[in-house]
Amino acid sequence: MKRHLISAADLTRDDAVLILDTAEEMARVADRPIKKLPTLRGRTVVNLFFEDSTRTRISFEAAAKRLSADVINFSAKGSSVSKGESLKDTALTLEAMGADAVVIRHGDSGAPHRLATSGWIGGSVVNAGDGTHEHPTQALLDAFTMRRHLTDGAGQDLSGRHITIVGDILHSRVARSNVHLLTTLGAEVTLVAPPTLVPVGVERWPCEVSYDLDAVLTKSDAVMMLRVQRERMNAAFFPTEREYARRYGLDGDRMSRMPDHAIVMHPGPMNRGMEITAEVADSPRCTAVEQVANGVSIRMAVLYLLLGGNEPAVTTTTPQAARFEESK
Amino acid sequence: MKRHLISAADLTRDDAVLILDTAEEMARVADRPIKKLPTLRGRTVVNLFFEDSTRTRISFEAAAKRLSADVINFSAKGSSVSKGESLKDTALTLEAMGADAVVIRHGDSGAPHRLATSGWIGGSVVNAGDGTHEHPTQALLDAFTMRRHLTDGAGQDLSGRHITIVGDILHSRVARSNVHLLTTLGAEVTLVAPPTLVPVGVERWPCEVSYDLDAVLTKSDAVMMLRVQRERMNAAFFPTEREYARRYGLDGDRMSRMPDHAIVMHPGPMNRGMEITAEVADSPRCTAVEQVANGVSIRMAVLYLLLGGNEPAVTTTTPQAARFEESK
Amino acid sequence: MKRHLISAADLTRDDAVLILDTAEEMARVADRPIKKLPTLRGRTVVNLFFEDSTRTRISFEAAAKRLSADVINFSAKGSSVSKGESLKDTALTLEAMGADAVVIRHGDSGAPHRLATSGWIGGSVVNAGDGTHEHPTQALLDAFTMRRHLTDGAGQDLSGRHITIVGDILHSRVARSNVHLLTTLGAEVTLVAPPTLVPVGVERWPCEVSYDLDAVLTKSDAVMMLRVQRERMNAAFFPTEREYARRYGLDGDRMSRMPDHAIVMHPGPMNRGMEITAEVADSPRCTAVEQVANGVSIRMAVLYLLLGGNEPAVTTTTPQAARFEESK
Repeated sequence: MKRHLISAADLTRDDAVLILDTAEEMARVADRPIKKLPTLRGRTVVNLFFEDSTRTRISFEAAAKRLSADVINFSAKGSSVSKGESLKDTALTLEAMGADAVVIRHGDSGAPHRLATSGWIGGSVVNAGDGTHEHPTQALLDAFTMRRHLTDGAGQDLSGRHITIVGDILHSRVARSNVHLLTTLGAEVTLVAPPTLVPVGVERWPCEVSYDLDAVLTKSDAVMMLRVQRERMNAAFFPTEREYARRYGLDGDRMSRMPDHAIVMHPGPMNRGMEITAEVADSPRCTAVEQVANGVSIRMAVLYLLLGGNEPAVTTTTPQAARFEESK
Repeated sequence: MKRHLISAADLTRDDAVLILDTAEEMARVADRPIKKLPTLRGRTVVNLFFEDSTRTRISFEAAAKRLSADVINFSAKGSSVSKGESLKDTALTLEAMGADAVVIRHGDSGAPHRLATSGWIGGSVVNAGDGTHEHPTQALLDAFTMRRHLTDGAGQDLSGRHITIVGDILHSRVARSNVHLLTTLGAEVTLVAPPTLVPVGVERWPCEVSYDLDAVLTKSDAVMMLRVQRERMNAAFFPTEREYARRYGLDGDRMSRMPDHAIVMHPGPMNRGMEITAEVADSPRCTAVEQVANGVSIRMAVLYLLLGGNEPAVTTTTPQAARFEESK
Repeated sequence: MKRHLISAADLTRDDAVLILDTAEEMARVADRPIKKLPTLRGRTVVNLFFEDSTRTRISFEAAAKRLSADVINFSAKGSSVSKGESLKDTALTLEAMGADAVVIRHGDSGAPHRLATSGWIGGSVVNAGDGTHEHPTQALLDAFTMRRHLTDGAGQDLSGRHITIVGDILHSRVARSNVHLLTTLGAEVTLVAPPTLVPVGVERWPCEVSYDLDAVLTKSDAVMMLRVQRERMNAAFFPTEREYARRYGLDGDRMSRMPDHAIVMHPGPMNRGMEITAEVADSPRCTAVEQVANGVSIRMAVLYLLLGGNEPAVTTTTPQAARFEESK
């Protein structure tokens, strides 16, 4: 493992499998009488959020606390940062205060990379979403969810699985991170989107592009519906809501044409009636809620692997743990 | 104990006495060298606040931390919730993140009930105030305060005590919860309010209604003054400020006509000069500050009883503790 | 030590040296495998902030958590406080909730003093900046930083050192606290400011005033550049930005005329190009980042000394610790 997690594109297959395997162990902590590990006691994790994102913030907060770290929330809105303090000065401040990890959410693509490569920070940087660039822990929790449903689990990757991602690819960091990670893990990815919402240069991405959702559904092991940003709906390149739902939304009829074992994924929060109908959202095939739970396990794994920890992992006798020990 | 605390109306006399007795034990924790119990270590309490209420939020936060729980504050303002995410999706998210208890404050009467009965949440739901409906932990801390002043304490209820509640009953969830709980505990409750601020259907409530404060004062063991919402003062059904203070405010003269043992209560924050004069607010007979302290003990007791806890209660040798053990 | 820390002016030389020595011990905690002391376990520290100040808030939060205290953040903006609740009622509430220390930031000079002397609060009050009055922990961290660079360290004061403070003295609580503390510690202080930004009555302060930065630089052991509040730049008494930077800003040329051992200080966040050039800000002689780190150690020391703590200090065998034990 590197010291930072900036981009799913930086992860090798082995890195990614290690994180997924570690997350499996972390998921087991939830079954303990005391759902907490002492591994990061005395470490400080700072959530540095330049954009509001309560869901992501509390997922990292829950993960860090379950590892016994101290968590400090730093909402950059309304702080000296918004009064013109540079990212550099903020970073140096957090470093000086002894932050062992900085979880950063930023509207500018590349801000986490800048933070990590600047030398301003001695601790680890974790990208919690930057502009339209990447959201690597989201991709990891998605891959974790797929692996649990579509493979035998620990040690496995996603070789040969067919994954379809549907929606506004152009603006989606979730899509971008997933394409990188899923292909690294051996999956075949197809993007489905209105032509105006496909990024320029997508032909160089390691995936297929289709404009016909129905044709792709029948051969998908997982279909990931992206959230529609309603505020973009008036823009010229966007279909009307009704048109969007009709052509790119997932309803019960479409879901019934997916293979029996295939799952429906959504990063949340869902727009019921837009990209997904209530029937599909609430069906047992939809893993949206499971993805949230898996998000805590993945973020525990990432923080644990990046920060080392003062104590041994959950167990030291499983093959995964042994592999983990070697990799340290 | 049920799994949730939604309404004071749901509590039996024995439930209520158990909570009060447990709160007595929790109050003793404050006298220890280390004012903390390990009982909820590894449990996560989420404060889900759709309305600002710093006082209530920090009371629950202090209570949970004193029991060693992890606390996550989720202010729904400005989050995806305010962007149209449904209560359901928020609930499923918190459930998936492993919330053992969700403390909810909401502007809509009934939101906590919906949360608790939906099946969305596996953990406990605690109502921290919903619309004009209920605020059960406020009623419990009020009853706890009365019991300490007006009875011999542990094991007792409030049989035969006369409690007067004064002010805007129409809009007050505090009044509503108190009427339920106090009558369950055997007290006789009289409401005093301007005629326009008495709810329709009050004749079916298990209490008296009076428009004459002076007549009721002399036979009250406790007089609870409700906070006037100044923003309502311009409304047609409301007297002028001066008229309100003259007819329904508590001043030193009125207080002197109360029985010697009787106490003055207020849920805070007080409008000095409106419903209560500074002289009364600052007199030793006013329990407003004590009520705040009792609020932490009550919320510790509620969280402890709802969440079980991994460790035995404070002591296991007192009669209350023994009763508690049986009730588990 | 008194029970509160309201003003640097209240500290004797021995108080101040004790805090600096204790902070040296606290700084060593950062080198431990588990960067945490159990000394304030079970204690509750409330950050009561009437003004936004993320940097100061998270510094106190990090300090309290490193001592194992529970921290509750109370942003008074948007709370019942802003709806007219008096400071008194807020104070009584925090007291009733069991706050062992209240760290207060307030726009009104004197608010922390009022809180500490009112009898409303049984715990300790720490001034985290009040109006244009004082910011004592800032002065302590500044003195700590100077002592580390300009003396042999533990046990020492700053006798005979020459310190220059440059900028808007009129509105600066940092300057005010530093003048008090530094002269108590034996240093000679010179203030440099535009004539319109020198407070009336400065001739009674125990320091020199100069309008000629260049003349003072060559004999300074430390030069502290205050942050320019750009929003004041349009005011009549203020020079233009360019004029300010030319006459009172520190650039590489000016820095080169300082003695070799002299340091450049800044409380942050820096306005690069205004009171300090990027070259100076980033030079190894600038201690701005170090000051932030020292801030956590100082705040740990202050909380530790004020709150006593349930456990012995970091070590009990060093001379400082022995002195500390005696002073209890």
